[in-house]
Amino acid sequence: MIVNEFELISKLTNSLPTNSFVVEGAGDDCAVIDSGQPGRYLLFKTDAVVQGIHFEADADPVRVGHKALSRCLSDIAAMAGRPIAALVTIALPEDFDVEYVRKIYEGMSEVAREYGVAIVGGETTTNPERVLISISLLGDVASDKCIKRSGAKAGDALFVTGDLGGSIAEKHLHFHPRIREAHWLVENFAIHSMIDLSDGLAGDLRHILDASKVGAEIRAGSIPISRAAKLQAKMKPNGKTPLIAALSDGEDFELLFTATSKDAVALLDGWKKQFPHTRLTCIGKINATQGLKIRDEHGVRELNIHGYAHFS
Amino acid sequence: MIVNEFELISKLTNSLPTNSFVVEGAGDDCAVIDSGQPGRYLLFKTDAVVQGIHFEADADPVRVGHKALSRCLSDIAAMAGRPIAALVTIALPEDFDVEYVRKIYEGMSEVAREYGVAIVGGETTTNPERVLISISLLGDVASDKCIKRSGAKAGDALFVTGDLGGSIAEKHLHFHPRIREAHWLVENFAIHSMIDLSDGLAGDLRHILDASKVGAEIRAGSIPISRAAKLQAKMKPNGKTPLIAALSDGEDFELLFTATSKDAVALLDGWKKQFPHTRLTCIGKINATQGLKIRDEHGVRELNIHGYAHFS
Repeated sequence: MIVNEFELISKLTNSLPTNSFVVEGAGDDCAVIDSGQPGRYLLFKTDAVVQGIHFEADADPVRVGHKALSRCLSDIAAMAGRPIAALVTIALPEDFDVEYVRKIYEGMSEVAREYGVAIVGGETTTNPERVLISISLLGDVASDKCIKRSGAKAGDALFVTGDLGGSIAEKHLHFHPRIREAHWLVENFAIHSMIDLSDGLAGDLRHILDASKVGAEIRAGSIPISRAAKLQAKMKPNGKTPLIAALSDGEDFELLFTATSKDAVALLDGWKKQFPHTRLTCIGKINATQGLKIRDEHGVRELNIHGYAHFS
Repeated sequence: MIVNEFELISKLTNSLPTNSFVVEGAGDDCAVIDSGQPGRYLLFKTDAVVQGIHFEADADPVRVGHKALSRCLSDIAAMAGRPIAALVTIALPEDFDVEYVRKIYEGMSEVAREYGVAIVGGETTTNPERVLISISLLGDVASDKCIKRSGAKAGDALFVTGDLGGSIAEKHLHFHPRIREAHWLVENFAIHSMIDLSDGLAGDLRHILDASKVGAEIRAGSIPISRAAKLQAKMKPNGKTPLIAALSDGEDFELLFTATSKDAVALLDGWKKQFPHTRLTCIGKINATQGLKIRDEHGVRELNIHGYAHFS
């Protein structure tokens, strides 16, 4: 990732052309479009993975295909949407291996079938030095069930699905976008805000806080830390602690969301019955005062912009 | 372009996952989706341009932005659609120049404003060796005015807009997608089939013929040859003749379409009044017998797969 990507994008996307179809432009998990169909919004998302950046040259191309499409599906999940159709652009060196490309399509097709997505076209183009896959996804959502980043309210409880951190070891190529889970959530509870975790818990929570103009306090002891993050910390004693990994590692592709705190117990109970194999954790609460704070046995501290510097 | 791109895509896209939303998947200018809105179809298209392949490193980045978005718009035009919203992915070397990227966005924004398209998001990612821009475009069209490649009928007259060939000299960075022209055509005449010229007249006409299971005969003397193609032939006497350039050069981004021949005179007359600065030419006719033939002063010959080999 380019260090100042967020600043660059926000600079460039400040004054982009818009029109009357746009409900949400740049700045949420998906763009939201009102094409005139009563009660429905379209969701529109694009995402690219690049060899050497998002996957290694020796990674199983079937898994690379999985990841490429699942990343976009995770963004549709974050808005509680239904995926409809995907377009695939694969940029390849001139001497590419047809079998490698076939396996990428095989991986994408497996995921597409599982989630009911049509792959409605593919373009191959040339990128001489490395493989790049860009996926474009169209989905839709009931207009009154479209969950944005901007709806978090003071007093909300803050929830996260799954276990966090250490995704690089394996999970980034093997995750399940939380489409069904998101649908169950919005059908059964008033979800106020939601995002998928791609940049790490601390960074993505900040996107919710900024969009909603609120703050949050999370409890260090309740952050669900993955086995991979613990294992990595053991193998690299001078690296990230498991907690820091869970706060700052990217590509978890879990859902982070808020709901009124009076629903918290019912939500956790209902979830356990519905998704017994996927953890759901309440990790803190939304505050009216802006800023992101973390509470541990030593008290409450500010989490800085990178989620972990000055935090040991 | 990868030599066997068409074969590869057709092999890979033979058995892609589909669903009940899909009206047309891979194989036309845009995918066509029925999202349930009465009387409307969604159009969905993605297209990438790569530095060193589709534009040179020293090309004006404003024009590169123009081209990147206009290519997709040309595909929407080919189905007589209305563009709604675009997403932009720019893959950049780590040491990219922010001003260069800003100018790409400036070019895209100019085109977007001209055609009423919203740019609803942008992603930047890393491609260490060269700039790659992938655009994803959402549009819509009246379901009874959506023109496909597959509707050409024996007896149809065959028309092409503009002048052909030599686009590489300048036009590939300075063309105007034929959105308004396409709308005027479908509102005033029964257009049977349409495609935009990206691979060259002979190649793209073949896409119409294959999809429609018909043949065509074109008249060499009526092909509208661009000044650029004539100039290039003069400067390179051993290169392509102007006619061969007009038949085989890519990136013209003009419309090639068919309509019943009894409308031909009214269509040409109406066009001249409506678009006095853009040429429209009837270049031949659709036949029931498959194959692509060209007629010149020596008689009628088969045009081969590349549009020009064995043709001197």
